[in-house]
Amino acid sequence: MSNFFETVDPTIFRSYIFWSAVLGLKMLVMSILTGMKRQAKKAFANPEDAPKGVKPVTNDPDVERIRRAHLNDLENILPFFVIAFLYLFTNPSVLVATNLFRAVAVARIVHTLVYAVFVIPQPARGLAWMVGYFSTGYMAVTTILAFL
Amino acid sequence: MSNFFETVDPTIFRSYIFWSAVLGLKMLVMSILTGMKRQAKKAFANPEDAPKGVKPVTNDPDVERIRRAHLNDLENILPFFVIAFLYLFTNPSVLVATNLFRAVAVARIVHTLVYAVFVIPQPARGLAWMVGYFSTGYMAVTTILAFL
Amino acid sequence: MSNFFETVDPTIFRSYIFWSAVLGLKMLVMSILTGMKRQAKKAFANPEDAPKGVKPVTNDPDVERIRRAHLNDLENILPFFVIAFLYLFTNPSVLVATNLFRAVAVARIVHTLVYAVFVIPQPARGLAWMVGYFSTGYMAVTTILAFL
Repeated sequence: MSNFFETVDPTIFRSYIFWSAVLGLKMLVMSILTGMKRQAKKAFANPEDAPKGVKPVTNDPDVERIRRAHLNDLENILPFFVIAFLYLFTNPSVLVATNLFRAVAVARIVHTLVYAVFVIPQPARGLAWMVGYFSTGYMAVTTILAFL
Repeated sequence: MSNFFETVDPTIFRSYIFWSAVLGLKMLVMSILTGMKRQAKKAFANPEDAPKGVKPVTNDPDVERIRRAHLNDLENILPFFVIAFLYLFTNPSVLVATNLFRAVAVARIVHTLVYAVFVIPQPARGLAWMVGYFSTGYMAVTTILAFL
Repeated sequence: MSNFFETVDPTIFRSYIFWSAVLGLKMLVMSILTGMKRQAKKAFANPEDAPKGVKPVTNDPDVERIRRAHLNDLENILPFFVIAFLYLFTNPSVLVATNLFRAVAVARIVHTLVYAVFVIPQPARGLAWMVGYFSTGYMAVTTILAFL
């Protein structure tokens, strides 16, 4: 059998690389958001981070909101990276695959904005989460069926 | 030197793709379990998620149990995805590699079942965790030694 | 177009595999550190883990410190695995790429040591975090620009 990696369409792979790098950078930004909010609210998790005399705080509601958004990224974007990579080997349609990657990336950026930057009433966050979730779930199921 | 990716055995790679997609889907299911439990216990982490007049709850023991199982997945399955992928390039035996992937996948599904779905006394969860942990650790050490 | 994966330099790929496996193993070690500290402090998160009559504890400061270090790994090392892999396809210089991987690996090991093993006053942890963070961020931006 010839090289397995040759079966991946270059257009789809380029799209995967681009949107995954965008989401990777978006995840990194969460640490900055958390750090800035900790500074603004004087809510430091570690005694060595706080100015002298300031006690550690681990339940500031604004800091915790950003941390929940970040954890939601770990739960959704990190599996996306892997599942979308596996899905590359299922020989998908270029149109479907590239739009799935784009949909997940845009949805997860919107998710962060409405969760942690400008808090917007539901269902904004729920809808953004669903687009990312079901696109990733579709790719997982498609991959499982293709390699059964 | 010719293409590095050509060295991966297709049978092992197919096994990696299949079991990783299964574990990816399993991880996604955790979000549904958490959401259902939050609904059943009326324990919503965000004020905008709760019905009017219901205060946010972040310490419901049943919700927290599922969240601990989910976090344990992030700590164990996500490194598995990467370590097992790297291990593909160590030219492992087909029998060993495919059974390691299968063992981790089955162990992590059992781990979720006994942790978050039907709570079973120890050592059920500990044993399931150990199978996944030491299989992944073995692949990490093998890879480090192969590329030293 | 010929195989996309052929474009990756074998020296860089070997370096990626080695340092990623080292960081994967480092992450796995965090679970052992947490378990040992839970045992030493009798601070078990689940009732089924604790000896009879010992109540679950989820706010022991020493256990929580290791868990914060572990979560910081999930937030930084897991995106590194993906971003560095994508960066392989940007045709980087061997010298730059291999030193970036080495820098992230060493920085993250130092980060764990000064955060969770021997607690050292700031800015030790902040500096270690920054080396890993900005190296990964650089790779993400480089990849986005290369595949725009």
